[in-house]
Amino acid sequence: MEQNKIPQATAKRLPLYYRYLNNLSNQGKNRVSSRELSEALKVDSATIRRDFSYFGALGRKGYGYNVEYLLGFFRKTLDQDELTEVALIGVGNLGTAFLHYNFLKNNNTKIVMAFDADSSKVGTDIGGVPVHHIDQLEEKMEGVSVAILTVPVSEAQAMTNRLADFGISGILNFTPSRITVPSDIRVHHIDLAIELQSLVYFLKHYPLKA
Amino acid sequence: MEQNKIPQATAKRLPLYYRYLNNLSNQGKNRVSSRELSEALKVDSATIRRDFSYFGALGRKGYGYNVEYLLGFFRKTLDQDELTEVALIGVGNLGTAFLHYNFLKNNNTKIVMAFDADSSKVGTDIGGVPVHHIDQLEEKMEGVSVAILTVPVSEAQAMTNRLADFGISGILNFTPSRITVPSDIRVHHIDLAIELQSLVYFLKHYPLKA
Repeated sequence: MEQNKIPQATAKRLPLYYRYLNNLSNQGKNRVSSRELSEALKVDSATIRRDFSYFGALGRKGYGYNVEYLLGFFRKTLDQDELTEVALIGVGNLGTAFLHYNFLKNNNTKIVMAFDADSSKVGTDIGGVPVHHIDQLEEKMEGVSVAILTVPVSEAQAMTNRLADFGISGILNFTPSRITVPSDIRVHHIDLAIELQSLVYFLKHYPLKA
Repeated sequence: MEQNKIPQATAKRLPLYYRYLNNLSNQGKNRVSSRELSEALKVDSATIRRDFSYFGALGRKGYGYNVEYLLGFFRKTLDQDELTEVALIGVGNLGTAFLHYNFLKNNNTKIVMAFDADSSKVGTDIGGVPVHHIDQLEEKMEGVSVAILTVPVSEAQAMTNRLADFGISGILNFTPSRITVPSDIRVHHIDLAIELQSLVYFLKHYPLKA
């Protein structure tokens, strides 16, 4: 498929473009320049123009891009119409924050269930999402192939192994642990401590000019 | 300075390398191959070798890299000995998760104070960090130049403007809002919804093989 020719770096920016263009459309804007997009999204305009060219979207000088055309394209590309159901594993503070975060608002993803071992949480609804006991994971997750991992670091690998045995396709890992998975499982890892340390490193070594 | 010649992509991986090598050292390991590092960190080994070569660290065939040499180098590079104090703005679920997360364990960053408008939180300690009223921000933040932003999206830009007026250097933005700042302020943005959507997009369009 042609879609597979999109560079991964470009693919990573698609959800960002989609969301912003959706906001513009909601505000009644019909067109947008790469410069405006660049300022709003903090992506340089040459990158935006190159990214868009992969989709056959060519901006016109003095006009920019047609918002609805781009949106239609991105919507199709991102499969906005097809909902992906997601399970959240670990209802601590971070997990609870996710459950309250309305993923469905601009997206095609929805957390449909959560798991925890704490009996005071099991049986409750948080942000409209039912919390099941972790012992019921395999039974309840039937048909769900993506998980957000927000368990304590000490349980990260054991829970990952269990998800792998279950047949998970993708894990969004928010634990500091670099989990190991079989090669057919995709893991995206967001390490909060490293994000912070990286910002501090950049501040020290790549100071910005006013 | 020579450090400024390190490519940004390499610089971004430094905290990751540092943390892992620190763990190896704690376990008493003296050497490590780029293949082992690659498997543990999910970074390909050619990239690791190229990254390390920027620091003058050249692995030896059949030996690999000397852990202590690398650690010494990274420690110096990441200014591990110099602590950066950070303020957290917004003590909701996500903010609370950060306060409980022990950033200091492997890092040179520490959340030293938090701010919220909720009087039931003000005056408490969460994870050992005092929570002040948001009205005291400018007074209490004297000397602190990095902030983690975990306020509701509706308050993100107004709070950013206030931090900019105060003279902040860097913001780690966890709100879904793409905040606008003057050009001398560095913002790293982590959008949880987009991270999830991006994972789902990759799963659909770049399936992995077993």
